[in-house]
Amino acid sequence: MTDIKAVLRAQHIETPSWAYGNSGTRFKVFAQKGVPRDPYEKLADAAQVHAHTGIAPTVALHIPWDKVDDYADLARHARELGVGIGAINSNVFQDDDYMLGSVTHPSARVRRKATGHLLECVDIMDATGSDTLKLWFSDGINYPGQDDLRARQDRLAEALAEVYERLGDGRRFLLEYKLFEPAFYATDVPDWGTAYAHCVKLGPKAQVVVDTGHHAPGVNIEFIVAFLLREGKLGGFDFNSRFYADDDLMVGAADPFQLFRIMYEVVRGGGLDPEAGVAFMLDQCHNIEPKIPGQIRSVMNVQEATAKALLVDRDALSASQAEGDVLGANAVLMDAYNTDVRPLLAELREEMGLARDPMAAYAGSGYFEKIAAERVGGQQAGWGA
Amino acid sequence: MTDIKAVLRAQHIETPSWAYGNSGTRFKVFAQKGVPRDPYEKLADAAQVHAHTGIAPTVALHIPWDKVDDYADLARHARELGVGIGAINSNVFQDDDYMLGSVTHPSARVRRKATGHLLECVDIMDATGSDTLKLWFSDGINYPGQDDLRARQDRLAEALAEVYERLGDGRRFLLEYKLFEPAFYATDVPDWGTAYAHCVKLGPKAQVVVDTGHHAPGVNIEFIVAFLLREGKLGGFDFNSRFYADDDLMVGAADPFQLFRIMYEVVRGGGLDPEAGVAFMLDQCHNIEPKIPGQIRSVMNVQEATAKALLVDRDALSASQAEGDVLGANAVLMDAYNTDVRPLLAELREEMGLARDPMAAYAGSGYFEKIAAERVGGQQAGWGA
Amino acid sequence: MTDIKAVLRAQHIETPSWAYGNSGTRFKVFAQKGVPRDPYEKLADAAQVHAHTGIAPTVALHIPWDKVDDYADLARHARELGVGIGAINSNVFQDDDYMLGSVTHPSARVRRKATGHLLECVDIMDATGSDTLKLWFSDGINYPGQDDLRARQDRLAEALAEVYERLGDGRRFLLEYKLFEPAFYATDVPDWGTAYAHCVKLGPKAQVVVDTGHHAPGVNIEFIVAFLLREGKLGGFDFNSRFYADDDLMVGAADPFQLFRIMYEVVRGGGLDPEAGVAFMLDQCHNIEPKIPGQIRSVMNVQEATAKALLVDRDALSASQAEGDVLGANAVLMDAYNTDVRPLLAELREEMGLARDPMAAYAGSGYFEKIAAERVGGQQAGWGA
Amino acid sequence: MTDIKAVLRAQHIETPSWAYGNSGTRFKVFAQKGVPRDPYEKLADAAQVHAHTGIAPTVALHIPWDKVDDYADLARHARELGVGIGAINSNVFQDDDYMLGSVTHPSARVRRKATGHLLECVDIMDATGSDTLKLWFSDGINYPGQDDLRARQDRLAEALAEVYERLGDGRRFLLEYKLFEPAFYATDVPDWGTAYAHCVKLGPKAQVVVDTGHHAPGVNIEFIVAFLLREGKLGGFDFNSRFYADDDLMVGAADPFQLFRIMYEVVRGGGLDPEAGVAFMLDQCHNIEPKIPGQIRSVMNVQEATAKALLVDRDALSASQAEGDVLGANAVLMDAYNTDVRPLLAELREEMGLARDPMAAYAGSGYFEKIAAERVGGQQAGWGA
Repeated sequence: MTDIKAVLRAQHIETPSWAYGNSGTRFKVFAQKGVPRDPYEKLADAAQVHAHTGIAPTVALHIPWDKVDDYADLARHARELGVGIGAINSNVFQDDDYMLGSVTHPSARVRRKATGHLLECVDIMDATGSDTLKLWFSDGINYPGQDDLRARQDRLAEALAEVYERLGDGRRFLLEYKLFEPAFYATDVPDWGTAYAHCVKLGPKAQVVVDTGHHAPGVNIEFIVAFLLREGKLGGFDFNSRFYADDDLMVGAADPFQLFRIMYEVVRGGGLDPEAGVAFMLDQCHNIEPKIPGQIRSVMNVQEATAKALLVDRDALSASQAEGDVLGANAVLMDAYNTDVRPLLAELREEMGLARDPMAAYAGSGYFEKIAAERVGGQQAGWGA
Repeated sequence: MTDIKAVLRAQHIETPSWAYGNSGTRFKVFAQKGVPRDPYEKLADAAQVHAHTGIAPTVALHIPWDKVDDYADLARHARELGVGIGAINSNVFQDDDYMLGSVTHPSARVRRKATGHLLECVDIMDATGSDTLKLWFSDGINYPGQDDLRARQDRLAEALAEVYERLGDGRRFLLEYKLFEPAFYATDVPDWGTAYAHCVKLGPKAQVVVDTGHHAPGVNIEFIVAFLLREGKLGGFDFNSRFYADDDLMVGAADPFQLFRIMYEVVRGGGLDPEAGVAFMLDQCHNIEPKIPGQIRSVMNVQEATAKALLVDRDALSASQAEGDVLGANAVLMDAYNTDVRPLLAELREEMGLARDPMAAYAGSGYFEKIAAERVGGQQAGWGA
Repeated sequence: MTDIKAVLRAQHIETPSWAYGNSGTRFKVFAQKGVPRDPYEKLADAAQVHAHTGIAPTVALHIPWDKVDDYADLARHARELGVGIGAINSNVFQDDDYMLGSVTHPSARVRRKATGHLLECVDIMDATGSDTLKLWFSDGINYPGQDDLRARQDRLAEALAEVYERLGDGRRFLLEYKLFEPAFYATDVPDWGTAYAHCVKLGPKAQVVVDTGHHAPGVNIEFIVAFLLREGKLGGFDFNSRFYADDDLMVGAADPFQLFRIMYEVVRGGGLDPEAGVAFMLDQCHNIEPKIPGQIRSVMNVQEATAKALLVDRDALSASQAEGDVLGANAVLMDAYNTDVRPLLAELREEMGLARDPMAAYAGSGYFEKIAAERVGGQQAGWGA
Repeated sequence: MTDIKAVLRAQHIETPSWAYGNSGTRFKVFAQKGVPRDPYEKLADAAQVHAHTGIAPTVALHIPWDKVDDYADLARHARELGVGIGAINSNVFQDDDYMLGSVTHPSARVRRKATGHLLECVDIMDATGSDTLKLWFSDGINYPGQDDLRARQDRLAEALAEVYERLGDGRRFLLEYKLFEPAFYATDVPDWGTAYAHCVKLGPKAQVVVDTGHHAPGVNIEFIVAFLLREGKLGGFDFNSRFYADDDLMVGAADPFQLFRIMYEVVRGGGLDPEAGVAFMLDQCHNIEPKIPGQIRSVMNVQEATAKALLVDRDALSASQAEGDVLGANAVLMDAYNTDVRPLLAELREEMGLARDPMAAYAGSGYFEKIAAERVGGQQAGWGA
């Protein structure tokens, strides 16, 4: 148990700056009270999540949503709040030029512009000290024939190579795949196989990031996790959960057993080892729930799944598997899953100098009342869609 | 063939006013040139679709997107343009009050407000002469436990009953179902069975509308069409197409064979007979394609599928079916599907005094150049999300 | 807690006779040791499940797989073993005549034969004292056009009406729906809406049975459960679990949270009340795991989900829901789900005079070694596909 | 048009020996009249398909279903019938030893046995002159924890490497992926990415085969085809069609537009060029339709899709794509799809000395009546599941 606690104490879950702003669906964005107006306020909110959970010490930025004049100042501000800057997320989907694509666009001019933005993000990595660039492309087509599937791969490969070349020492990019949305017929990086194939060709600084909401129905995500870990190509996670499409609900809310299975493969494949370099990031849309508590709950959900995964009796499991004892092996896994780890985690938090119940502690802190009162006027942060 | 042409000549496909405005995804709405600024301009665009296809004589309105001071004047404007007002579509999903639901909201105050809007739409039916109210509810919940599934059905039933009571003679409402989005765990009218059960209890003025993009993967839509026609409960269609979720692509673009099968069941079930009262409506989002040509193409796609469905040799089909001739029966259907009906439809258009190729005719009409030049300034119509 | 235990003590989960025989996929049926050779041996195995769990007192029969000369004698045998006969399951899918359908077949002769079998099953209900007939039809078509979707509904309605008429007092039938397999284009009862519509027309003796593996991907099963309970049309469950199609894995194995949500709606809708008449049945294929332990584990999985559902703090939940507290309401539900109910259930078993751990008790009982040794020769029971 | 005909004349679609035997679902295998009793009779039936279509000159074998004492004699028999031996398909899923896997089984003994079978298949390649080995593994697990996902990849890699080493000059193997069935939780080669990654490591003699029924719902198969062609890793197709899971219906029956899109990517990527080495094979289950006509229809469906794909005006398409003309580019593709190519193909057949209508020609040939009369007694071929 001591070992488990040590691992849990070292766990590091990154929250995204955009989770603190407004988000919604194409039907409606419901604004909430106290929402940040700028990146500085987003970092302050993120610092709350870390203050109450103890395991969310970094914050991902999204460019241009988090564009500031002085990134060094922003990084300093983060440090003062007790957090650090995590991955830099690029955005090549919200300029009018990108209607038909960014790096895979038929027009060389648009591609140039998009790649330019990616290179700018590399500069921001330097300015903020971030070591990870996350690349998600909304690129794709809505209609068969709209553009040439293969030519778009050629263009994608070219852009990725240019960005790869610019990465400094100790820097990497994570390539994200997504089956659909906003493109509705074909996406240029639709699945892990596509991302993997590009990353293998580029080299060790290119890795795959698994967004848990980006798969076709029924796809076994933990298999992908196990496979990528075996190949040394799992760069990280964008955690969230879904019942249907890319619903972007709180991680663990839709299928906590799946989250446990994913974390089990992470543990089994050595992915919690800091040297494995797996980034555990949240990427969610709190459309109707309050944002800071939504992030706290999500961090706790990952933590609980991790604790259960660590509780699996690996020796017993291996023995049952070797014997072909189907029910016995399954039972070993389920024993861990069925364990209530909340007391263990409350104890851990106490040892870390935190409140046993982060949700209650935040609710009682008065922070929300404070920001709701103070953050009046200005333009609330959001996606700007 | 004469009979087929007569049926095709009488076909009536309704286009939605909102198809002429901007639309997009949660990631980005790409504005287009020449987009209408008000309902009057939307009707003008819809009239173009009718002018070139000859079978799109009505336009659905959406309240409040198409709110005007004088509906009688709007209806008059439509008549002058050669079109009429079709179904009135209610909107109880874009007010801040509706974050957790409208007619199924836990709060009686919000429910009252939502029902009030629906009753206002009945008034607009009277003012415009529309005989059909289309009800789609975004109501649902994102998280298990968020609200009580059963209580929400009670509330839904209550609201529907109130609206039903207010419907005048010769009026009806169509209840739309949708599996998910914007609610991501449970939707209050998720499937045809739910809509059907409510409509059966209410009576003959309540019918089900089938949006072709609102089903779980793999669901056989033509079965639902056949079933509802058998029950006298098919009120109409919201046509569009999808590869994944509610992609809202042009109808027939993703799976033209499915559209043909749907239209075959319509034909077989007598649904083209005007007395059947089946409304054939489009409901799409032209996110990246130009809007008016997108509607023209969609109308043509439905027309082509209808022509093929009418070409099915029903006697030969029945004979093969009765004999249990699996391949023979399938071949009869496929023979019709594989026929190129474009020459027949070109001929039909010529007989109707139209150009043989509506897409080319529109492109050559100069209409787009005109609106692109004229519609400058003002606020382009859109969803206002 | 006393109340919860009382409810759990009264719970009644029916196991199916065919779960004790061999089963498999189209690729291979792997025979296992000790498998029963006749219905008497199947009942003996089922009695073991009840002996160790205390809540599986009845066994469903499948005709003709469980055809015997003297059903009264079989029922007497069951009573001696401490169990009773549950639902009678009809089979109109394994005769060569049924290749293109049974009650919906184009040929009146085949339909007559199929309906005759269903009526024979009603006779067997009388002979065995069973009050429930379960109707599953493999009927459907593989190719568009193969047969007429609507005519098949007419034929289905006719057969159901005939069977319904023959049901004695206190008897009922449950109509099962299934999206696909073995029919691969259209199934004649594909979804709950279809089953519901037929049952409503027939009357109170016709109810819907929910097989948890028979839905399209993403369908919210607990919504259907809640809806059918509200309508008084939920006749029962065929429990199993699946990741993909109708995988027929052990219930609760693929998505234990879903099973909990289903049981919560059962509890909330009064479905555990014996007067509600909801039959809780297992319907699984133990293709690779040993059959008796597979059933014991499945019964325990349903029991654990039920215990968690009963632990939900309904008052706190209602309060949070009424306030629109999204995270709070979800948390109330999750608190119950995250509770480890195994100690409670062990205690309950002890109070019922059972071993605390049914799996271990069965494993230590020597029963398997006994049947493996004794059941040599003869024809092992299976589906006979 | 001359060029198109030349390409179509050279097309080569391989039929599988097992399509001529009985097949079915886990619920029932319906036997048909005239079904072959041995590999020699299967080849005779396959020769009929070639005789009437002119483009199905080879037949895939399945070991052990097509095990014979003298493969050279079988190959000679095939030549006399006017056909050749195509791919050799291994079977490591029907021995009792393979209940928990074959090459990924926890037991080294079972893995040895399975690999031994694969090597035996390489020997049969030599004996028959086949240059292609097709590897499909049913390997996988039904329950989380049942076995170690990663260890199974290690074992798979080891077995593949051993087989790869044994391949002679000019020989290759095709690795098939499948999402699920008969394994229902995790499959060891679930998707193209997994197959691709293994093949890349092995070398040029290992390629991926795309079975069109083996994907999750919504997966864009033509994207995979385009991607693998770009990488030089598309070894071939197992054609069939599906509405739900691996339904194994006739190719083109469920979604003819998808088949066209796939064939378009084949054409666009140079996959029809014999030097590309893409094998076009059918892999279907004619559960209810007659087998030989089922194969003829399937060959014709692929041929029709190919003809349409060849009709695409590539220059016009490229021009529209380059301009970002969404509707225009889509229209170019649809123009080809909407063309009725049956007259062209009838003409082609006439030029090839064949009847214009293969289905009618076969029906009128008396072959079925002959085999139905002659093939009485003996054991009909089937899967032996």
